[in-house]
Amino acid sequence: MSAIPQDFVKQTARLSDEITQPFPGSRKIHVPGSRTDIQVPMREVTLASTQTSAGTEDNPPITLYDTSGPYTDPEASIDLMKGLPALREVWIQERDNTEQLEGPSSEFGRARADDPELASLRFEHIRAPRRARPGHNITQMHYARQGIVTPEMEFVAIRENCRLQEMRADPRYAALLRQHPGESFGAHIPEVITPEFVRDEVAAGRAVIPANINHPELEPMIIGRNFRVKINTNIGNSSLTSSISEEVEKLVWSCRWGGDTLMDLSTGKNIHETREWVLRNSPVPIGTVPIYQALEKVAGKAEDLTWELFRDTLIEQAEQGVDYFTIHAGVLLRYVPLTAQRLTGIVSRGGSIMAKWCLAHHEENFLYTHFEDICEIMKAYDVAFSLGDGLRPGSLADANDAAQFAELETLGELTRIAWEHDVQVMIEGPGHVPLHRVKENVEKELADCFEAPFYTLGPLVTDVAPAYDHITSGIGAANIGWYGTAMLCYVTPKEHLGLPDKEDVRDGIITYRIAAHAADLAKGFPGAQVRDNALSKARFEFRWQDQFNLSLDPERARVFHDETLPKESHKVAHFCSMCGPHFCSMKITQDVRDYAAQQGVSAQEALEKGMQDKAVEFVEKGGKVYREV
Amino acid sequence: MSAIPQDFVKQTARLSDEITQPFPGSRKIHVPGSRTDIQVPMREVTLASTQTSAGTEDNPPITLYDTSGPYTDPEASIDLMKGLPALREVWIQERDNTEQLEGPSSEFGRARADDPELASLRFEHIRAPRRARPGHNITQMHYARQGIVTPEMEFVAIRENCRLQEMRADPRYAALLRQHPGESFGAHIPEVITPEFVRDEVAAGRAVIPANINHPELEPMIIGRNFRVKINTNIGNSSLTSSISEEVEKLVWSCRWGGDTLMDLSTGKNIHETREWVLRNSPVPIGTVPIYQALEKVAGKAEDLTWELFRDTLIEQAEQGVDYFTIHAGVLLRYVPLTAQRLTGIVSRGGSIMAKWCLAHHEENFLYTHFEDICEIMKAYDVAFSLGDGLRPGSLADANDAAQFAELETLGELTRIAWEHDVQVMIEGPGHVPLHRVKENVEKELADCFEAPFYTLGPLVTDVAPAYDHITSGIGAANIGWYGTAMLCYVTPKEHLGLPDKEDVRDGIITYRIAAHAADLAKGFPGAQVRDNALSKARFEFRWQDQFNLSLDPERARVFHDETLPKESHKVAHFCSMCGPHFCSMKITQDVRDYAAQQGVSAQEALEKGMQDKAVEFVEKGGKVYREV
Repeated sequence: MSAIPQDFVKQTARLSDEITQPFPGSRKIHVPGSRTDIQVPMREVTLASTQTSAGTEDNPPITLYDTSGPYTDPEASIDLMKGLPALREVWIQERDNTEQLEGPSSEFGRARADDPELASLRFEHIRAPRRARPGHNITQMHYARQGIVTPEMEFVAIRENCRLQEMRADPRYAALLRQHPGESFGAHIPEVITPEFVRDEVAAGRAVIPANINHPELEPMIIGRNFRVKINTNIGNSSLTSSISEEVEKLVWSCRWGGDTLMDLSTGKNIHETREWVLRNSPVPIGTVPIYQALEKVAGKAEDLTWELFRDTLIEQAEQGVDYFTIHAGVLLRYVPLTAQRLTGIVSRGGSIMAKWCLAHHEENFLYTHFEDICEIMKAYDVAFSLGDGLRPGSLADANDAAQFAELETLGELTRIAWEHDVQVMIEGPGHVPLHRVKENVEKELADCFEAPFYTLGPLVTDVAPAYDHITSGIGAANIGWYGTAMLCYVTPKEHLGLPDKEDVRDGIITYRIAAHAADLAKGFPGAQVRDNALSKARFEFRWQDQFNLSLDPERARVFHDETLPKESHKVAHFCSMCGPHFCSMKITQDVRDYAAQQGVSAQEALEKGMQDKAVEFVEKGGKVYREV
Repeated sequence: MSAIPQDFVKQTARLSDEITQPFPGSRKIHVPGSRTDIQVPMREVTLASTQTSAGTEDNPPITLYDTSGPYTDPEASIDLMKGLPALREVWIQERDNTEQLEGPSSEFGRARADDPELASLRFEHIRAPRRARPGHNITQMHYARQGIVTPEMEFVAIRENCRLQEMRADPRYAALLRQHPGESFGAHIPEVITPEFVRDEVAAGRAVIPANINHPELEPMIIGRNFRVKINTNIGNSSLTSSISEEVEKLVWSCRWGGDTLMDLSTGKNIHETREWVLRNSPVPIGTVPIYQALEKVAGKAEDLTWELFRDTLIEQAEQGVDYFTIHAGVLLRYVPLTAQRLTGIVSRGGSIMAKWCLAHHEENFLYTHFEDICEIMKAYDVAFSLGDGLRPGSLADANDAAQFAELETLGELTRIAWEHDVQVMIEGPGHVPLHRVKENVEKELADCFEAPFYTLGPLVTDVAPAYDHITSGIGAANIGWYGTAMLCYVTPKEHLGLPDKEDVRDGIITYRIAAHAADLAKGFPGAQVRDNALSKARFEFRWQDQFNLSLDPERARVFHDETLPKESHKVAHFCSMCGPHFCSMKITQDVRDYAAQQGVSAQEALEKGMQDKAVEFVEKGGKVYREV
C-alpha cells in the first residue's frame, strides 16, 4: 500500500472497457431544464417492435434513471488525470456567497499538500477549496427555506421524473403506465416531482441533496422518502489490502451498476490522496466517516482523539469536497453501559471508538459536546450530516434494544440543532433486525427524528447466512425501504468474511437496486412499474434482446441465457430452454388468445360484473371470448 | 437423452464426495421416538469453547433440522442401485389396510415394465406397488381424524422440535434461547410441537404430511403454517437437455442444501424411469405435475388429452410413490377469458394446457368435472393434492387480478371436496406480486381455502432482474412465509433464462432457506433464533470455524473468508480482513467491556428505569458500569 508506483497514472488512465462501455441497446440522453446548463443525464433503451399476425407494432423507448455518470457516454472524453467536468461550478459561483481560499485551511491538508514525497500519488489538478463567505449560509436547505429553487433542485426534480410527463402525454405508453396503487405508510409522493416540491421537502428536512460546494463534479441527486429509494455503496482500502487505483476503479464500477452515493471507508495510509482521486472523478455524492481518519492520525489509540484533531479532519475533508459525513454524536457516555448485556456489544466502528473514548476520559462524547461547532463547519461547505448509529445491533439478539433506541432519540435532538443551522441531516439505522421488527425502526425514526431521511444498513433479517448477506440484508432492505427508508446502504456477499471483489460489489449493488425498486413499487412511486411492464411484455413476446437490455444486469441475463441456448437465432426463438420448442406455456397462451380472437364479445365483461353463468353461456355458445381492444 | 448408456449405473453409483461428505464440525444424530423404529435424523454441530480472561467456557452443541437424508451419514451405506432403506415399510404394513399388487395397475406402467428396450434404464429393485384395500382409507388425514397418532406424525413432531425441550432443560442454553416474540398473523404455534398437535393440525387440514405408501423411503416431514416454513426445489429434464443420472444427482444435491420436498418436472422421454430412480433414492417427498407426462403421451397436443389417459397417468405415478400431485382443476372455462387483457396471459404450463383444452372442446376442465374420481385415486395411495394455480400472474401487472382470485375461490371449493375424502390438500400460489400486495394473497388463501397450507412460487417482487430472480423472489418469499405461507417453491438465478446448473440450484436453495428461516423468526417459531444466537456469539468471539460450521453454507463462508485471509492461523485470529489487526470494532468493544468490568454496579439498572442522570452519575463517579452477571 505504502508507495504508489509510477505506473499508477497509466493504470488509472485506462479504465477497462468492461467498466465504461455503454449498456447494450441504450444511449445516454440529457433532458434539458430551464437553463441551458441544466442537462440531466438519463439512459434510454430502444426496443424492437412487436410482430403480430396483424402486422408490426412499435414499442416506445424506455427511459431509465442513470447513476453511471459520463463514463457510459461515448461522447464524453474521460481523463481520470483531470477529473470530471465541474458541472455545478457556475451555479456555485453565481450565487456569489462563497470565496476561493488560497489553499487548504486544515493543518493536515496543508501538510499533505507540501509533502514532496507524495507528489507521485497526488491528483495533479487540485482546485483551491471554496468556503462560504463570513455571514453567509450556503446550504441547499438554507436556500430552500428562503424559498429559492436552486439549479440542483431543478436537476433532481427532472431526474426523479425520468420523463414521466412525456410518457403520460404519449398514447404509446398508456398500457406501460399501468401500476398498482401503492401503500406508502404516510409518505406523500406527488404525481409529478416539481422543483418546488423538491425545495419544500429539503426545507422541511424530509429530503437531503448532498452537494458540497467543493464537489462541483457531482450530478445532483436527492434522498428522501417521497423520492425514489436510493442505495449507497462502500469502498475502502484497509490496512491489509487494496490501493488508490483500485478504489477509483471501484467508484466507476459502483456508479455503473447503480450506486447512488458512495462512502469511502478507507482506513489505511494515503487516504487523503485516495479521496482526492475519488472525488475528482465521482459523479455521485461521496460520504466518509471522518473519525476513521482521525483515528489513523493518533495511531489507532481512541483515547488520544481530541476535538481539535477531529475538527481539523472535518475541514480537511470538507475542503476536498466530501458531501456527507457520518458523525457518531449520539453515542453518549450514559448509553454505553446499555450494551453490556448484548450478545455482540458495539459493532459500529465509529461507535466503538467513541465509546472507548468516553470511558477512557469519563467525559461526554466530544462529537456531542461540540455539535454546534461541527454544524458551523458543515454549513460553510454544505456538507450533510449522516448521524451515525454507533450503537446499532450486530445481531438479531440485540435488535431494537434500549441502547439502539436511546441513541436514536439523541439523534433526533441533534437533528433539531443541525436544522437550526440549516444543515442537512440523514439518520443512520440498523443493521440486524428480524423481519417483523423492521417496521418499528422506521416508525421510531420518523417520530424521533422528525422525518429526517432514514439511511439504513440492510438490515439483515437473519444471522445464519454468511456468504449470502447481500440476500439476508436485501430482504430487510426491501422492507425497510417500503416502510419509508430513503437510502439503503448495500451489503456484499463478503460481509462478515472478507473484502469484496468486483463481482461481489456487483452482486451487492444489483441486490440493492432490486430492494430499492421493490420498495418504489410498493410505495407506488409514479412510473416505477414502467420498466417492469416493458420487460414483461418483451418476455411474453420472446423479444430476448429487449428483455436483457431492460434488466438491471443485461450482461449477466444474456450470459445466463446463452449458457443453454447460445445461438444468435435463439434470441428470436419463440421458446426458451426451460420447456423447449414443443412445450411452452407462453406459446400455448398465444394459441389460446388467437383462438379466442375468432370468438365473440363480452364474456369478460359479463365476468367482471359477476355474471359468471352468462359468461359461460357466451363461451359455450361459441360467442366471442375476448373484448375487442 | 434417448438411450441411457450402460455406464449410467456406474455413474450414479458413485456420487461425488462433494455431494455426500458430512458437513464440517457436524455429526448425524438420530433422536429416538416412542418405538425403536422411530429414529429422527438431525445434524449436531459441535462448537469450540470460549476463551475468556477468567478461563474456558464450553459452548454446547447446536442441533439443526436436517433434510440431507442418509447421504451425509458416514455410517450409512449408500447404494443408488438398491435405493434407500424403506424406513416406513413396517408402519405401513402393520396398519394392515393395504394390499400389495401383482404389478403396476396402470396401462402405461405395465407397458414400460414389459418393454425390454428399457431394461438398461430401469431401476432394478422395483417393488410391486401397494394400494388401499377396498373400503379402507389410508391417508394421514384419515388417521388424524380418527384420533390416531401415526408413527409419521410422531416423527415430524420430534423433527420440528429439534431437541428444543432438552435445550430448555439445560442451563447452558439459557442465553441462546433468547428470542424476539413473533408476529404470526393469527397462526397458532405452540411452545412445543407434540404428536397430538401434529395430528390435530392434519385433521383440521391446516397441515399436510406428504407420504405416499409407495414411497416408504421418505423421512416424514410436515407442511403447515404452525410448523417450520418449508422449501421445495425443482428438478427436471426438458426435451433439450439433461439425463436420468443428472436428475438423481440433483436430488441428492437439493437435499444436501436444504430442500424439504422436490418436484420432478421432467418433460422429456423416459420420465417414468427417471422418476423411479429419483423416488427410490429420495429421503424427501416427491411431487409431480401429472399433466406434463399426460401431454407427452399425446405428443404435446393439449386438445387430445382425455380423462382416461390422465387417470392412467395418475395411477402410474401414484404406484411409483409420488407424494403429491399438482392438479390444475381450478382453471375453469369461464375464467379463461379473464386473462385476455393480461400483460403476460397464462404462464403456468399446466394452466395453459388446461385452458387450451377447455377452449378446444368448449367443455369444462376435466380435472374439475372428474375431481371426485381423482380423490378416489389420491386416497388409495395417500397422495396429497397440490391444487395448482394455473392462472397465477406472470408479471407484476397481472398480480392479484380477477383471474387469479377467481381460480383461488374454486380451489377452496375443491379443498372442501378433497377433505370429504380425507385427502390432504395444499394450495399453490403466485408468482409475481409487488411487495405491498403479497399479504393480500395469504389472507385470501386462508379465507377462501379454509387454512389449507399455502405453497407459493416466490413471489417475485419485481420483474426487472432476470439473472437475479432468486433474490427478487426471495424477498417475496420471506414476506409471504412470514404472513403464513407453509412452503416456498424455490427460484434459481436462471429463472426465465435457462436451466439451472448445480451452483444455481445451490444459490436458489440457500436463498430460500434464508427466506424460510427469516419467516420462522418473524413468526416466532420456538427455538428458531438459537442458530442465529450461536452464530453471532461465535462471530463476536472470533471463533471462525464455528461461524462457518453454523452457517447455511459452511463451505462458501470458509472459501470467502480464505480469499482474503487464507492462513490457518487466521481462523483463530482476533481480527478479520475488513479492518485488519489494528482496528477492529469487535476488539474495541471487548476493551470497553474489560474496562467497564473494573467499574461498579447498576448504571444499566438506573438507565432501564429511565434514571439517566443517575446513570451518568454512576459512570462519572467511576462506579461500576456493568451489572454483575
